[in-house]
Amino acid sequence: MIVVMKKGATQDQVDHMVGRIEELGLKSHVIVGTERTVIAAIGEKREHIKGSLVTGSGVDDVVPILAPYKVASLEVKPEPTEVLAGSLRVGGGSLGIIGGPCSVEDEEQIIQTARAIKTAGATGLRGGAFKPRTSPYSFQGLKETGLKFLAAAREETGLAIVTEVMGTDDVELVSEYADVLQIGARNMQNYRLLEAVGNSPRAVLLKRGPSATIDELLLAAEYILNEGNPNVMLCERGIRTFESHTRFTLPLATVTYLHQKTHLPVVVDPSHGTGHSALVPDMAAAAVAVGADGLIIEVHPNPERAMSDGYQSLNFREFQETMDKCSRIADAVGKTIC
Amino acid sequence: MIVVMKKGATQDQVDHMVGRIEELGLKSHVIVGTERTVIAAIGEKREHIKGSLVTGSGVDDVVPILAPYKVASLEVKPEPTEVLAGSLRVGGGSLGIIGGPCSVEDEEQIIQTARAIKTAGATGLRGGAFKPRTSPYSFQGLKETGLKFLAAAREETGLAIVTEVMGTDDVELVSEYADVLQIGARNMQNYRLLEAVGNSPRAVLLKRGPSATIDELLLAAEYILNEGNPNVMLCERGIRTFESHTRFTLPLATVTYLHQKTHLPVVVDPSHGTGHSALVPDMAAAAVAVGADGLIIEVHPNPERAMSDGYQSLNFREFQETMDKCSRIADAVGKTIC
Amino acid sequence: MIVVMKKGATQDQVDHMVGRIEELGLKSHVIVGTERTVIAAIGEKREHIKGSLVTGSGVDDVVPILAPYKVASLEVKPEPTEVLAGSLRVGGGSLGIIGGPCSVEDEEQIIQTARAIKTAGATGLRGGAFKPRTSPYSFQGLKETGLKFLAAAREETGLAIVTEVMGTDDVELVSEYADVLQIGARNMQNYRLLEAVGNSPRAVLLKRGPSATIDELLLAAEYILNEGNPNVMLCERGIRTFESHTRFTLPLATVTYLHQKTHLPVVVDPSHGTGHSALVPDMAAAAVAVGADGLIIEVHPNPERAMSDGYQSLNFREFQETMDKCSRIADAVGKTIC
Amino acid sequence: MIVVMKKGATQDQVDHMVGRIEELGLKSHVIVGTERTVIAAIGEKREHIKGSLVTGSGVDDVVPILAPYKVASLEVKPEPTEVLAGSLRVGGGSLGIIGGPCSVEDEEQIIQTARAIKTAGATGLRGGAFKPRTSPYSFQGLKETGLKFLAAAREETGLAIVTEVMGTDDVELVSEYADVLQIGARNMQNYRLLEAVGNSPRAVLLKRGPSATIDELLLAAEYILNEGNPNVMLCERGIRTFESHTRFTLPLATVTYLHQKTHLPVVVDPSHGTGHSALVPDMAAAAVAVGADGLIIEVHPNPERAMSDGYQSLNFREFQETMDKCSRIADAVGKTIC
Repeated sequence: MIVVMKKGATQDQVDHMVGRIEELGLKSHVIVGTERTVIAAIGEKREHIKGSLVTGSGVDDVVPILAPYKVASLEVKPEPTEVLAGSLRVGGGSLGIIGGPCSVEDEEQIIQTARAIKTAGATGLRGGAFKPRTSPYSFQGLKETGLKFLAAAREETGLAIVTEVMGTDDVELVSEYADVLQIGARNMQNYRLLEAVGNSPRAVLLKRGPSATIDELLLAAEYILNEGNPNVMLCERGIRTFESHTRFTLPLATVTYLHQKTHLPVVVDPSHGTGHSALVPDMAAAAVAVGADGLIIEVHPNPERAMSDGYQSLNFREFQETMDKCSRIADAVGKTIC
Repeated sequence: MIVVMKKGATQDQVDHMVGRIEELGLKSHVIVGTERTVIAAIGEKREHIKGSLVTGSGVDDVVPILAPYKVASLEVKPEPTEVLAGSLRVGGGSLGIIGGPCSVEDEEQIIQTARAIKTAGATGLRGGAFKPRTSPYSFQGLKETGLKFLAAAREETGLAIVTEVMGTDDVELVSEYADVLQIGARNMQNYRLLEAVGNSPRAVLLKRGPSATIDELLLAAEYILNEGNPNVMLCERGIRTFESHTRFTLPLATVTYLHQKTHLPVVVDPSHGTGHSALVPDMAAAAVAVGADGLIIEVHPNPERAMSDGYQSLNFREFQETMDKCSRIADAVGKTIC
Repeated sequence: MIVVMKKGATQDQVDHMVGRIEELGLKSHVIVGTERTVIAAIGEKREHIKGSLVTGSGVDDVVPILAPYKVASLEVKPEPTEVLAGSLRVGGGSLGIIGGPCSVEDEEQIIQTARAIKTAGATGLRGGAFKPRTSPYSFQGLKETGLKFLAAAREETGLAIVTEVMGTDDVELVSEYADVLQIGARNMQNYRLLEAVGNSPRAVLLKRGPSATIDELLLAAEYILNEGNPNVMLCERGIRTFESHTRFTLPLATVTYLHQKTHLPVVVDPSHGTGHSALVPDMAAAAVAVGADGLIIEVHPNPERAMSDGYQSLNFREFQETMDKCSRIADAVGKTIC
Repeated sequence: MIVVMKKGATQDQVDHMVGRIEELGLKSHVIVGTERTVIAAIGEKREHIKGSLVTGSGVDDVVPILAPYKVASLEVKPEPTEVLAGSLRVGGGSLGIIGGPCSVEDEEQIIQTARAIKTAGATGLRGGAFKPRTSPYSFQGLKETGLKFLAAAREETGLAIVTEVMGTDDVELVSEYADVLQIGARNMQNYRLLEAVGNSPRAVLLKRGPSATIDELLLAAEYILNEGNPNVMLCERGIRTFESHTRFTLPLATVTYLHQKTHLPVVVDPSHGTGHSALVPDMAAAAVAVGADGLIIEVHPNPERAMSDGYQSLNFREFQETMDKCSRIADAVGKTIC
């Protein structure tokens, strides 16, 4: 941590900060510049201290040097994590493809979709049984009945089940049916829920909140990892920006950046990331090109009649075409869809 | 809802959309423009339908006309809601002032703070016993012990207690001690938690998520209102933007805008909204000038030694000066601090 | 245009708006809904009218139906525009590759770079002679001397020259040397300059401003097109968002979206779009996958010693590897690098 | 400047960076931490060097310590600058009020407005004669005729004239008529124009670009100051964020923050900053409360018939009421409207 003193800070103020730094168990090192004095605080502390030091009299700013996350860091575990969950394999050169509807609506819909996406090359089936909806007046999901339909679809197709868990009370129930517990973007910093899934034996797909920084995403992952669950996949699903021609802005550079900072695999969601089915195939292709370890794509037998998110869902033919293109690009970048 | 067809949409496509609209229980009304055809869909449906219609063949866009929220709307209840919670009064001409530390650290700290802010004019005491922290390595709060300290401070000063509830499991416990349950910004769309506080007898302070739109904030409020709890205060605490010289960007126009759309009172948090104690007094004054119904401000006996958020906390003297200024501005705009 | 009246708007207010609409030369069409009345305004007017109508008494909102741009629109010219400028070919299935340094520093640097990028497959050479720099203390470019070095590099390699023009006074001079005039992001809405390049015989590369909407970008293009210059390439170079781990956020969905709205070709700049050379190769690949018509990439013989933007420049080897990858992806999506 | 080496950087890499720093004329100081080595680079250089150092092998990041701007800095000139331009006085305890229409439309409109705002307490008259319009199809202004009308209004009322200059070719002409040259938000980084107004004898109102950082705004001001024109007023007029219920988001904390960093006065534009006349009065009041040195507000005799920006213009009565409120708040914060 570097404590930057204001121009004209007094020796007393510098001495006070040196004292504070040492009180916190760090070593201090004063550097007198031509315009300002800075104090390096040396040691392993990461959090909390910045806030404490920055209020000091004569202090202009405090600049952290260490990343705030630890166990998610590539510095701690340099080899990429590969997550295996049933038939799904994500990371370490494997490109996992998860498809399926926003909401599980009925058994026919989910079985039909499972068959279609399996044919097209998917290895995971998504579908919401518990649905977090912006409006209390929207369809909230079939709950356990939906989970049973998903399990039936796995029974028939062998696809791994990826489904959202919304509250701590549901973790046990959802874990009975699902291969992967999804933490939705709205719950990325629901710490009670992160701790609960950290104690589940299931893999976790952690979606980035629409205004979360990368540090916040990795710290959310650490809440899960620290409870003992190492099978965490990060998911970029778009951020909120001033752009209104897409539902969110999908920043694909996140994938490469995360690969430089963390060993956890990165899945991209071009459906939420764009909000328009017409933009999904190209952005799925781009996500593969940039090096994503997985894709999660909304697919519905008849998007026009979907009970949620129809506007961003592909039909079966569109999904097949998207997979064909992604497959060619996976070849070009040395990834294997499996 | 207005369905805008693409230029060159065929009569068949228009007819199909008319059929879809009527299937959904709405009346349709076709308007042929000079370049495009639009179809008005008339009726009361709000959610879900847009997504369903926009995927139709030949459709360019679907434009909603009605706001998605209902019971929070000024159209439903034209007179402003005034929330009373112990000594705190927010809305309807009353400006409620809530002060206190980010975290409850010990009994001395909280009692001392309660006395100081009461002297300065506050009627509510904030303090976190359960702390949602971005990092799992940060101080997580004193939990029930912290609640007891808050209750002791109320015992002595009469100040209403405002404290955060992080999970559904804690609602009952926190409700035993607190006058107001705070839903933090990270949990604004934690729907299980919204439902739980909607069933509590306590008033609720609902903080806007840093990337939430106004519609999303009001729909979150509706989750609470719909469970039967009418005592909801909205809180503007800053949004995430490209600006980095402040922790968040505090958009005060939200206050006036909300007053034009909803009967719920609006509290402003200049501490989180700026992230720097040096910016808090002016922004508190501006919040009063713009018409806020309440302020929530971080105050600590010794910010330099605070266990969290010290950099944005005022000390007692700074809080007193801020209140003096706010009081003069309240006079100028016809509000009463009480 | 749809004029949405407030709930409870009076018949007088509706009549007044009908009168206003007809005064403006449009036809009106009143639709009485269950909660509100809306008035469709039918006709070809696009701009200005919204602002005028929205202030009407009893009006809640005015919703435009037509896009504000015309000649850039795919509705006006359904076949894609292919821009040819010297050896550079962008659009219509051709992927144009432009490489080169941020600033022209000396003849050796630019000739060496031209040779290297030509070998790697580029057909255009970028290099700034007039540099818009955020700080007045930064290197401002070699001006005409820089243009001469660029011309010398074209002489030797045949590469088309792409270089920025910063002011109206420079258009004529720069046009003497360059094949493509670049309008920088800071000048996207410098209308005097847009008009000036609209009157030049050279092709124009128009960079999106970091907070420009798509409508604003296309309207800026219309300033150029309307002066009679049809050879306009749009360039996505990243938008300003809350993200700080990249210099800008590069929203690749823009490419697909623009292809659905305009006939103008779209070039992507992964160098400015990420701001880190380590992120450029993957994002270049993703841009090709998403369907870009061209790439513009910063390349420098020795980025560590570049006079500007060294941190986002590739060296020759990195550029070669990037081109190899992009070439494989171009094959996968049916584009030809030429 | 602090060069942060990657964990595991070699001694050779550290030595190389020390060499680079010294080559650049700075002194270096190596600090070996528990996890990383950092190198302080001591000296006065500000720009360019960061980019050069950050590409070094083994370097993780480079953190600047000094602000990039100089002459605008409070460190260089600790007393606030007061700008006097005709009857207008901005800064140093004086609150200057500028009102008037978006565009000058005819003589009657501008004279009538000048009289009305003078009565209400304004000391400056705004009005666009040269209009930068997003669309080429919108009204572009009356040009010199408009300037003559403005001069006539000054003749009659004594109000100082504030009007926009769009291109370098117009600076001389506009300077003949205006007291203050306005640089619009779209031109904040049009460096040719900044240099041109820096050479004019008129004061300058420099509007913040909607995605400009504070550093970028102050560096733009330095382009003007460095040419020898010290009379620069900064103007906060809103930034582009994800919010869509306002035209821009108006971040009032900017005012206080700027007062801590620069001696230049700060004017707030609540008209563009909100985009809705119904939000202007409250935000004008809030701007005064936060400590603005001036306000610039759109006023039109009949906003419904304005040729531009009618939706955000106040009529005369609304402006009078706004001034009454602002005047009470100015009293409360110790500012004088004059």
